Amino acid sequence: MKKSFNVAIVGATGLVGRTMLQVLEEKYFPINNLKLLASERSAGQNLLFRNEQIIVEELGQNSFRGIDIALFSAGSYVSKTFVPIAVRAGCIVIDNGSYWRMKPDVPLIVPEVNPNEAFKHEGIITNPNCSTIQLVVALKPLLDNYGLRRVIVSTYQSISGAGQKGINKLISDISSIKFCEAMENWQLSDNKNIAFPRRNSDSIAFNTAFHEPDAEKGFSVEEIKMMNETRKILNIPDMKISVTCVRLPILGGHGESVNVELSKPFTLDDIREIYSKAPGIVLMDDFENGTYPTVATSESKDEVLIGRLRLDSSCENSLNLWFTADNLRKGAATNAVQIAELFL
Amino acid sequence: MKKSFNVAIVGATGLVGRTMLQVLEEKYFPINNLKLLASERSAGQNLLFRNEQIIVEELGQNSFRGIDIALFSAGSYVSKTFVPIAVRAGCIVIDNGSYWRMKPDVPLIVPEVNPNEAFKHEGIITNPNCSTIQLVVALKPLLDNYGLRRVIVSTYQSISGAGQKGINKLISDISSIKFCEAMENWQLSDNKNIAFPRRNSDSIAFNTAFHEPDAEKGFSVEEIKMMNETRKILNIPDMKISVTCVRLPILGGHGESVNVELSKPFTLDDIREIYSKAPGIVLMDDFENGTYPTVATSESKDEVLIGRLRLDSSCENSLNLWFTADNLRKGAATNAVQIAELFL
Repeated sequence: MKKSFNVAIVGATGLVGRTMLQVLEEKYFPINNLKLLASERSAGQNLLFRNEQIIVEELGQNSFRGIDIALFSAGSYVSKTFVPIAVRAGCIVIDNGSYWRMKPDVPLIVPEVNPNEAFKHEGIITNPNCSTIQLVVALKPLLDNYGLRRVIVSTYQSISGAGQKGINKLISDISSIKFCEAMENWQLSDNKNIAFPRRNSDSIAFNTAFHEPDAEKGFSVEEIKMMNETRKILNIPDMKISVTCVRLPILGGHGESVNVELSKPFTLDDIREIYSKAPGIVLMDDFENGTYPTVATSESKDEVLIGRLRLDSSCENSLNLWFTADNLRKGAATNAVQIAELFL
Repeated sequence: MKKSFNVAIVGATGLVGRTMLQVLEEKYFPINNLKLLASERSAGQNLLFRNEQIIVEELGQNSFRGIDIALFSAGSYVSKTFVPIAVRAGCIVIDNGSYWRMKPDVPLIVPEVNPNEAFKHEGIITNPNCSTIQLVVALKPLLDNYGLRRVIVSTYQSISGAGQKGINKLISDISSIKFCEAMENWQLSDNKNIAFPRRNSDSIAFNTAFHEPDAEKGFSVEEIKMMNETRKILNIPDMKISVTCVRLPILGGHGESVNVELSKPFTLDDIREIYSKAPGIVLMDDFENGTYPTVATSESKDEVLIGRLRLDSSCENSLNLWFTADNLRKGAATNAVQIAELFL
């Protein structure tokens, strides 16, 4: 077993790539040599790692020579094209893109949930979708202790899930409505009716949004991913799950409102006990005393924060819960680095 | 039947009160004399109605002499104290507050849903909670055509539901993190890690939030209201319904993600047909072609916008839907004025 590794990050200048850098540093990942790769447009920048400036190189056919572990977060086209190249060069690839996730013989891994599957890899291990990761972390203890009959999810997803583009759009849309200039005027005064600036339906400024439509008519790509990936990770191919994904002008993490029907009776106190001991989870459930997860609370944390546990009297053995996680960390970079840590 | 009415608005200077003014004007409500009432602190302002300045008077014991219809939106204490005074003075009271809603013999009315109940009033008619109103409008056609077995709701509520205070908090929280000064810096650059300003968990700036805790442990007041009021309005006291309410930094309206189990088989096309003809509803359901409701789209409209219809394969006879409505209009002022219109 090697003591330290040659690591490459593909898409190093993106939001997730930069977060991967942060997480690798925080976790003292044993790195011998770090190579940062990006598109031609993004290459040439310097990024800081362990107090050292590293020049970002342009991704190419020969980029993976001598690399042990390659972390990818550069979109589906790059994953499709370069992951096989990296595998042929002898890397273990941990890919945050969606292209390889549902392929048979490609493990889809959340370390708290199905770590052993990672060792069956044939060069590629995939990192699930951000909203999927926090869902399966929250469901796993319920699955193990009670069995799952049905899961209904509504998500509250940060626009940062769309990467730097998403954040740029948020800023741009807020600027378009001259929010900063106008906000003082929103105080009520004589003769003034509320006149909030008109926004197009595709504005994310103080508005709701959805992901792109899927080929599956009526559904979004995010909803299809969540359902497919959850079934694969939990190894329940016919799992009863229904999902609505909503994008919002929030930052720090994704929230999820989940209704779960379990296969056995339970008490909320037992579930709190289970969650308080479960890996990768922090229980924050004392609503009447002001303790509950928010996406701001999740920011920069690696755990899934769980709260708002309530009995659902509308169905037997059912409860509602709410959980948040930093979509760039546990939802992407941290989960990927944790997969890499399985090989230490 | 009178030709025109003496109308009073209690809480005229608040967000809902001002919206009531707008709606009365838009609908050419036959007003003989309009009296605007508010607290001592808010009295003395001028508000514009039909091009005429009206001085806001301080609410008192004698404020309702000669008034035919009194619209209240001034909080529970004012409703508790002054609604009976208005009734004794001979008014029909239409109250947007929560205090009287669940009292027996007090109608709780959404005109598209249960208009006839309004005529059973004993002086007080109540306007439901904003999130309840849009829910029952969306459910009524499904109830009438298929029967409802179970309803699971996750809401996406505008912070304007907390009134002007909510909007002020949004502005204040965004100012606190120096968003306007900093937003240019969110562009990635060399050596810069993403450093979004830290927020407290109670900040609404790009964050998720909940309503106040209810006496019913674990639930929020909004969730309890929605469940109780929906059962009353639809006249299904034992209706199977489960609700999670989330407050967000969005403006224009509330969104709701709803999973419904019907009592009979259906097709989505049949439901689209039903919705396209239902009162108070606009169908916006062509997701792959970019047609779906958003809260920005809802703003200043009086209808409930319904879309994102999807089959739920996890349960028989089940579907998911998403709808939005302007929480200040259909969710409050417009519904109240529509109740008043029942008496024309």
